[in-house]
Amino acid sequence: MNAVAEFDLAPWMARHLSAVEQALSDWVCPSAPAGLGQTMRYSVLDGGKRLRPLLVLAASESAGPTAASGGAALRAACAVELIHAYSLVHDDMPCMDNDVLRRGKPTVHVQFGQAQALLAGDALQALAFELLVPGDGSLPDGLSAHLCRSLALAAGGGGMAGGQAIDLASVGLALSQTELEHMHRLKTGALLQASVMMGAACGSVPSQALAHLADYGRCLGLAFQVVDDVLDVVSDTATLGKTAGKDADQDKPTFVSLMGLEQAQTYAFDLLAHARAALVSSGLPHVAPLHALADWVGGRRH
Amino acid sequence: MNAVAEFDLAPWMARHLSAVEQALSDWVCPSAPAGLGQTMRYSVLDGGKRLRPLLVLAASESAGPTAASGGAALRAACAVELIHAYSLVHDDMPCMDNDVLRRGKPTVHVQFGQAQALLAGDALQALAFELLVPGDGSLPDGLSAHLCRSLALAAGGGGMAGGQAIDLASVGLALSQTELEHMHRLKTGALLQASVMMGAACGSVPSQALAHLADYGRCLGLAFQVVDDVLDVVSDTATLGKTAGKDADQDKPTFVSLMGLEQAQTYAFDLLAHARAALVSSGLPHVAPLHALADWVGGRRH
Repeated sequence: MNAVAEFDLAPWMARHLSAVEQALSDWVCPSAPAGLGQTMRYSVLDGGKRLRPLLVLAASESAGPTAASGGAALRAACAVELIHAYSLVHDDMPCMDNDVLRRGKPTVHVQFGQAQALLAGDALQALAFELLVPGDGSLPDGLSAHLCRSLALAAGGGGMAGGQAIDLASVGLALSQTELEHMHRLKTGALLQASVMMGAACGSVPSQALAHLADYGRCLGLAFQVVDDVLDVVSDTATLGKTAGKDADQDKPTFVSLMGLEQAQTYAFDLLAHARAALVSSGLPHVAPLHALADWVGGRRH
Repeated sequence: MNAVAEFDLAPWMARHLSAVEQALSDWVCPSAPAGLGQTMRYSVLDGGKRLRPLLVLAASESAGPTAASGGAALRAACAVELIHAYSLVHDDMPCMDNDVLRRGKPTVHVQFGQAQALLAGDALQALAFELLVPGDGSLPDGLSAHLCRSLALAAGGGGMAGGQAIDLASVGLALSQTELEHMHRLKTGALLQASVMMGAACGSVPSQALAHLADYGRCLGLAFQVVDDVLDVVSDTATLGKTAGKDADQDKPTFVSLMGLEQAQTYAFDLLAHARAALVSSGLPHVAPLHALADWVGGRRH
């Protein structure tokens, strides 16, 4: 038996999730005035799969635990989660997806009003960058600058926000698979891949392994979205913690509408196999958590 | 006659504004997909006083033109303007101030719809941080990291977004002068002061002068808001390029409602005198543009 097969994700995940939750609770500013801090905390704490932070932490350990800068990786992990959280807050607003349920709770604008939701999202994005430059000298400047650039590129018009714009413009259109993949590569793939690469930067992953990790991140990100589309069809609202069936209701193109349910499931399986192969090709010594996260993406129920 | 009295702001301003407009046009991404780039450009180009970029550039030259890193200062100048521009786009949305006119043009959500306005604002914030880390080695990592932290703090829950939250919560309330100043210190003062300090960082201003520049930025920022409140009462919509009289219409506390028109004008004058005194105390050799910008804030008509 090899190390990958023996790896038990549960305790690894529990330990890292605990660190992430604690750090988010420490850093998501209760001191922001006039209820803003409370809205920001509601937007981020007590919910979410935390896949992006786990990818950061797993990638940061991939060259070996001693190569990892724990402080940097935890900051990067929280930064990507704040970007993800703010995007959900804005995405749920009436002018976007107009959703009332997220992570089994009322969405932020339902709970606190649209203006607070808008501001909390804006403040969370700024906080993400603040976390990457702690200002106390605990992170090397070069690493801070690299992480800020990676995050900005993944979040902006050439990444997540650009993908959301394509998504908006695609309602009711028949996209080709190439167009649909391009949209998702920006909308969710860019931040998922950036999570892996920001973790790699925190963990001093050797340059010859970076392209393989990027490949892993790309395939995992796309698989995540394909699984999301499948779950939107086969799961129910209670299990998802968000409104099921809304893609079809909103006439949005999905991998299921494009290729059918069974074919979409096969495609997700193939993408994850490719992601795992990239990990093997990387030659990195501690990729068991990254393997296990790929398994988890393939097997998730919400 | 001294150098300050002889300084002619107009050609200095024309030269620097031209550089800023060109850089914004180059950097605000036309390539962002599905109309997002067009919306971002509409939000930023062809309008605005560019006070924040001019403060960055003036502060960057204050220790002497040779101390200034032109490339860094121009990036910082555009970054603060992008943060300002995104805040206006979101602030004008129906769930916030619900305004239809800005810089004499339809506001972004009127022109492109609320969803595009929301996304363009989000993407502009990310782009601001991207500009501060060019990724080509043209800025020292330490400077990039410092600028990112300064901008994040000025924009976030403890800065601009926090001030907007206080503003929202203050409608219809009778604030004390201390409370009103606290709101404005966050809402507009933080980014104006950060513009000065980010410029100083780009211009290698000696540490003993920094507290004086911070004092200048603080007083100028507050004076800017007091003048804004005065103009909202005494000017008209055509001159302002945005809806006049809206503070009173929205029952918002202002310096005019708190202390009366004449007293507010005197207060702005006193704050600007304090700002000029701080420049003298700084001992910096090239503060004529900063002096002239203080004069300009005091004399502006829109």
